[in-house]
Amino acid sequence: MILCDIGNSSYHFSSGEKFYIDEFEPSCISEDVYYINVNVNVQTKLDTLKNWHNIQNKIDYSKYYETMGVDRVVACEAITHGVIIDAGSAITVDVMRDGVFKGGYIYPGVNAMQKCYAQISSKLDMEFNFNIKNLATNTKDALSYGFLKPLHVEVMQHNLPVFITGGDAKKLLHVITDATLINDLIFQGMRKIL
Amino acid sequence: MILCDIGNSSYHFSSGEKFYIDEFEPSCISEDVYYINVNVNVQTKLDTLKNWHNIQNKIDYSKYYETMGVDRVVACEAITHGVIIDAGSAITVDVMRDGVFKGGYIYPGVNAMQKCYAQISSKLDMEFNFNIKNLATNTKDALSYGFLKPLHVEVMQHNLPVFITGGDAKKLLHVITDATLINDLIFQGMRKIL
Repeated sequence: MILCDIGNSSYHFSSGEKFYIDEFEPSCISEDVYYINVNVNVQTKLDTLKNWHNIQNKIDYSKYYETMGVDRVVACEAITHGVIIDAGSAITVDVMRDGVFKGGYIYPGVNAMQKCYAQISSKLDMEFNFNIKNLATNTKDALSYGFLKPLHVEVMQHNLPVFITGGDAKKLLHVITDATLINDLIFQGMRKIL
Repeated sequence: MILCDIGNSSYHFSSGEKFYIDEFEPSCISEDVYYINVNVNVQTKLDTLKNWHNIQNKIDYSKYYETMGVDRVVACEAITHGVIIDAGSAITVDVMRDGVFKGGYIYPGVNAMQKCYAQISSKLDMEFNFNIKNLATNTKDALSYGFLKPLHVEVMQHNLPVFITGGDAKKLLHVITDATLINDLIFQGMRKIL
């Protein structure tokens, strides 16, 4: 079964293949494809293709909230008990307890946060140290701790297992060491829904 | 005694008066002024004025770190035991324990963080809800919780009294309810140094 997770920048297939939105023509696939999509521009095209099946309408959204991204919902469907971190352009954090969605939040992603600091002052324009452990005594570590530790401490206070996915998951794992990396969490959720 | 805290955007006097950098001529004051300054552009001018006294060289910087902003250091000099939050264009957090600086970090300020979210996606372009308490079930609260709660939880985990100052201190007090607001913390620190 071909599964596809369509984001703002790319088509991501369960085979592991990834294609940029502008460089991929979905009609080139003749097999059935089951997908979720957060990209408004792509939806019109997909709606014309009979073998591309949007599985969003198979989800019981009443457990979640209306404007919650379908990728977040699908990740929650995969995990019945735990904190789910999806580290992409934004870092979404969602809490599931005994199969019930308890709410979540949105934190800036790695690139967004780095740009954010740089825009405050050119003195803060530097890359993060993902091995930060303690309070900082230099600027690079002060930014790294400021970005990573508050997130880490918040996530751990729920006293739940922590699962992490997304493009920057491995970077965050240096700080959120207690988390379990699940690269294909979205596809696990999609399979469960189907 | 006239004290002045010079930031990137303004001259802030102990009298409570504030003037934008470009709209104020320091030579218009004939009395002695004791100041700290983080603004490189202004320093050359101040160096020519005999009645403007930079108190930075009166501080024992060996307790801190070289590139740490003098405003942060002066706030630390005012508090011997506690977490110090200075909520400006960046939010600096510093930890003092029994008179010893334990390190700190830099978190984006209110405006910077709002812009940061907006740049990730136009769907995330909204103002914060500073009354956020629990995990979110709508986008506005998801951003507000994401900005405010990780910071709050990190600050509280040090088990120290929390002191807050800076232009956005009152906004943060809605979430960091256990903090003590000290509007003139920088001036308290400057007086202590003098």
